[in-house]
Formats: sequence, structure tokens, C-alpha cells
Amino acid sequence: MNAQRLDRTYALLQQAGLQALALVPGPTLYYLSGLSFHLMERPIVCLLLGDRPPCIVVPALERAKVEGAGFEGEVFAYAEHEGASAGAAQSAARYAGLEHQRAGVEATHMRYLELSLLQAAAPQVGWVAADGALASLRAVKEPAEIECMQRAAVIAEQALEATLPLVQPGMTERELAAELGLQPLRAGDLLILDWGARVQGYISDLTRTFGVGEVDAELSEIHAVVQRANQAGVQAVRPGLPCSQVDRAARQVIEAAGYGEYFIHRTGHGLGLEGHEPPYIRQDEDSLLQPGMTFTVEPGIYLPGRGGVRVEDDVVVTEQGGRSLSSAPREMRRVG
Amino acid sequence: MNAQRLDRTYALLQQAGLQALALVPGPTLYYLSGLSFHLMERPIVCLLLGDRPPCIVVPALERAKVEGAGFEGEVFAYAEHEGASAGAAQSAARYAGLEHQRAGVEATHMRYLELSLLQAAAPQVGWVAADGALASLRAVKEPAEIECMQRAAVIAEQALEATLPLVQPGMTERELAAELGLQPLRAGDLLILDWGARVQGYISDLTRTFGVGEVDAELSEIHAVVQRANQAGVQAVRPGLPCSQVDRAARQVIEAAGYGEYFIHRTGHGLGLEGHEPPYIRQDEDSLLQPGMTFTVEPGIYLPGRGGVRVEDDVVVTEQGGRSLSSAPREMRRVG
Repeated sequence: MNAQRLDRTYALLQQAGLQALALVPGPTLYYLSGLSFHLMERPIVCLLLGDRPPCIVVPALERAKVEGAGFEGEVFAYAEHEGASAGAAQSAARYAGLEHQRAGVEATHMRYLELSLLQAAAPQVGWVAADGALASLRAVKEPAEIECMQRAAVIAEQALEATLPLVQPGMTERELAAELGLQPLRAGDLLILDWGARVQGYISDLTRTFGVGEVDAELSEIHAVVQRANQAGVQAVRPGLPCSQVDRAARQVIEAAGYGEYFIHRTGHGLGLEGHEPPYIRQDEDSLLQPGMTFTVEPGIYLPGRGGVRVEDDVVVTEQGGRSLSSAPREMRRVG
Repeated sequence: MNAQRLDRTYALLQQAGLQALALVPGPTLYYLSGLSFHLMERPIVCLLLGDRPPCIVVPALERAKVEGAGFEGEVFAYAEHEGASAGAAQSAARYAGLEHQRAGVEATHMRYLELSLLQAAAPQVGWVAADGALASLRAVKEPAEIECMQRAAVIAEQALEATLPLVQPGMTERELAAELGLQPLRAGDLLILDWGARVQGYISDLTRTFGVGEVDAELSEIHAVVQRANQAGVQAVRPGLPCSQVDRAARQVIEAAGYGEYFIHRTGHGLGLEGHEPPYIRQDEDSLLQPGMTFTVEPGIYLPGRGGVRVEDDVVVTEQGGRSLSSAPREMRRVG
């Protein structure tokens, strides 16, 4: 367990009046303990408790992995037969000493499988969504985390450059689809490529828009507008600014060009161990940017029946402003 | 929507006394509708209803995708602002006309995010795990599904043959880890490789065990035992047999050789759109094999501190018995 991250978690739980936090395998458990498991039919749940070390319910098969990862807490392992997990969950609940209070779960990760196990083992507890309480937990990245994200961006950009030459006139649609997972392309279309990579769990998430052969003047124009909106969003970034102001900076470029109604989503989302995580770069999000936060800036214009443009970069907040982790050319390149 | 699969779903729900089924993005929604989405912070939930067409709650961004996939039902789309999904869920609940009855969810997929939305929109409904009721829904594969699984097995085997030559004496540990994601290997170790591929959502899941250089006589012996247990498991397969008897056939080879206590898991699990799904090949699983069912046969022996062996194949039940989709050599090959 990472003691410093764990302490921050306990502080957030206490602020929110939560007696405990129940985690299933996923980014927060990995962030705190280094443990990762596939989410399968065998329930796994870790309880973080303010007043005693954590505990974890795992299949017996996973006990060695938990102990090998230096998990500092109680392990309640269950055998390979129907219903065995319920007994382990009851032992965990007894150990945890949960009272008639509220305890948190991550709404986007906790499954009915583990929730019903917890509810049966500790029926007196009110299990509530802790996503708001935990929004800041992983939002400010440490230098080592930013380094992983930087490497993930570089790997994604290298993959793009290796892939683009494969998009050739004369390729059959089937070959193209096999290479890129694409729909058939016709000359004059816009092609949005949204792709990424992962380094030690940390994600890059990039988008570039290409012209398939020659595209008409309006499509070229909306690409130029979106590229300026992307730049305006990144340049607006500074510590202390509300997230909504980054959205505003990008959105007003598109509105001023007369395409506001075709920018149908938020400007971006936090990025890290999850593809979408806080902070959300949205018109109604007033939380303040802090150095070390990482998020996408990805304005777009989508003209129904004609085609769409999106230009997406991954940005880290520094004392000096926003720094893009990605540097692949943003202007509209031509493929095919 | 696939009408025939939908009808089978409704029949299973009725048998189980469930008024409705709530699905989040995942294998069952894909199986029934062809729709797939990432599980993110924006809730998506589809309600299957016995007495009227289904409905789905989706972010407005996904409306075109749902309609393009030929979803035959009501679409309740919500806009991009905090809390907008609650209104769409309430509209869906009104449309669904759910009464004071039980409705099903998939315990291994339904998240707190969607569950709490449903509970708020239809507080009079008892949401219960439908996993048992639905166990047979995807278990018997159609020929086209088996064809995908066959292709996934072939692709995985080709990947193995392409990768094995990379394991060379003189490689640094770092190079090896980068290629295969492996821990450092020492001569005399056993190396368990568990890998697979995916074709149109359908999974292959294979394991072979390798000797790193020369391994000692007991490790060679346990490999031979496990290989015989794998063969005994596959050969036991026939329609009408309880799953437990396949486990028994494999397990008794290992027990007869004196290694029973080191075979610490079930013999296999169903395989298809999920990596683990019914039927489970377990000592306490008495459901009967049917033609078209697909599952792994993967006995193993793990000697603490010395090393482990597992040999895993993907098997389809035919009228004539078990047919392995995988054919990579099962004897212990040498690497490094």
C-alpha cells in the first residue's frame, strides 16, 4: 500500500463523513495498492477503514498475489465453491467493525456482485456513491505518473506515424478495415482517428482529423476552426482557473465562427489510470485547476451528413500554464 | 435486435418470474442488439420488457449509434450536463410501466451507477441478480459464433509461434519482459503462458507450459500428468453429461498420480463473449452439457516454491463428443 496516498484517501473519507470505502479491482485499488485483477465472476473487494488496517476479500487463488504485493492488512480468502465468498465477506465485515453508518463505493466501478455481498455481510451500513468525495484523489499527478502519460503519448504518436502510410489509394476496404478498424472511406471524406496507448496503466488519448484526398472548402474551414479552438483551450489553462473557463475558451472560438450548435460535447475530461476521470472540462464544472492535473482538450464540429472534425491533445497543468503531452501535427493531413 | 435471441431471453425471464431485465453495456447487450459501448462515467442502461418493446437510456452523443444499429425500441437520450441522466431514466421507467415486482440485473456487470439510477427511477421494483436465470442464454453457441472462436484460437496459436522464437538465451530480462510481459526466467524453471485472442468479440483462452532449458524429472512428470488430465477431460465430454463429470475425469488423473492437493482450481469455465461465463466445469456443477457449449479444459498442478503446470484448451461440445478448437502442441516444449 502507498501510505501517503492512503492517508489522503482517509482524509477525504473523513471529510465526507464516510466510515469506510469499499473498492473493487480497478484504478483506485491499483493506485493505492498496486494490485490489479480482472473483474470476473469471483468477487474481490477491499475495505479501507479509518481506524484499522484495510482488509480484502479474494479467491484463494489470488492470496499469494495479494501477499506478494505487500498488502498491509487482513486477507479473507475463499475457496472454489458456490457461495464461499459470502462467508469471507462476513468475516471481513466482522473484522471491519462497521456500524450503523455510511460507507462509500465507487459508482462507476462497484458491481451488483460485490455490492450485494457487502449488503448481506453488513446490512446496517448505508452504501453510498463516494465518487464526488474522491474526485480529487487521483486528479493531481505525481511526476512519475506524468512521465508514464508522456511515454504513452509518444508511443501513440509513433503508432500513428507507423500506421498512416498503410492508408493508401488502391487498398481494398477490407485491408484498410483490418489495419485500422475503419469504415470504408470515400475521397472527399473527413477521417477522425481517436486512439491511444497505455504505459503502466496510464493512458494517452489523442484525436487527429484527416482529409481523404481533397476535401471541400467548408470542411477545410471547420478543421481550421477546431484547430484554433484546441489551441485556445490549451492556452487558457493555468492553475486556479475553473475548468469551465477552459471549455469557454475553446467553445467561443467555435461559436464565433458560427458553428456553436455543432460542438455537441464538453471540451475534455480528466485522464490518468482511467480514460475518463475528474476533472471534467465542462461548462458547468467549477472546480479549480491545479498543477499536476491532466486532461484532454478536444473540441469538435460535426456537420450532420457531411462529416466531423475533432482535434484532441492531452494537457498537464503546470505553474506556467498548460503543457501538451502530445505534439503530433494538428493541421489537417491528407490520407489515401 | 436479434428477435430469436430476444425471445429466448423473454422466456427465461418469465420462467424466473422477472418482469424486466436491465442491461448495461457488455456481452449480453451486444449478443442481443449488436450494441457495444465503453463503460464510462455516462450511464447507459437498456430495459427488456416482456409486454412492450425494449427501451434504452443513453447520452445524446450515442443516439445515432443506437438508431444506426437498428435498435427496435424507445431511445431516451440525455444531454451533457450533471444529473441529466436521472430525467431520462425516469422517462424510461414511465415507459416501461414497471410495477411492484422483481426485475433482473446481471450481477457481474450492473454497476452502482446504473443501479442507483434505476432504483431512483423505479423505487417500487426489487432489482435482483438474474445471472442464474440467464445462465443458459449464451451458453449454446450458433455455428457462426463457434467459427469466430475457432478463428480466435487459430490467431492465438499463430501469435504463440511468432513469439516463441523471441525467447532466446542472451536476451536481457528487460527485452524479454517487454516482449512477453514476463518475470525473469531462470534455467530449470517452468514457464506458464496463458494467452488468447478475440474475433468479433469471441474469445480464445489457451495455456501451454514450457521448460526454460532443462527441467528436472519431477517437473517433467507433473507436466506429463497434467497433459493426460487435459486429454481425459476433453475425451470425457459428451452431450447430456453433467459438467462435474468433466472435472472428475481430469481431476482423477491428477489424484491418481498423487498430486490431487496441488490441483487447486476448477477444471474449466465457459467461454464466448466473456472470458469466464457459464457453464463452469466444477465439482459442484450439475448442469448438463449440450451440443454447441464451449468451455476451457485446463487442469493444473502447482508445487509451492518449485513451479506449476497448466495445459488449457478450448472445447466445443458436439454430438460426437468434445472437439478442441485449439491444436498447438501440448507436450512440454523448451524455450530459452
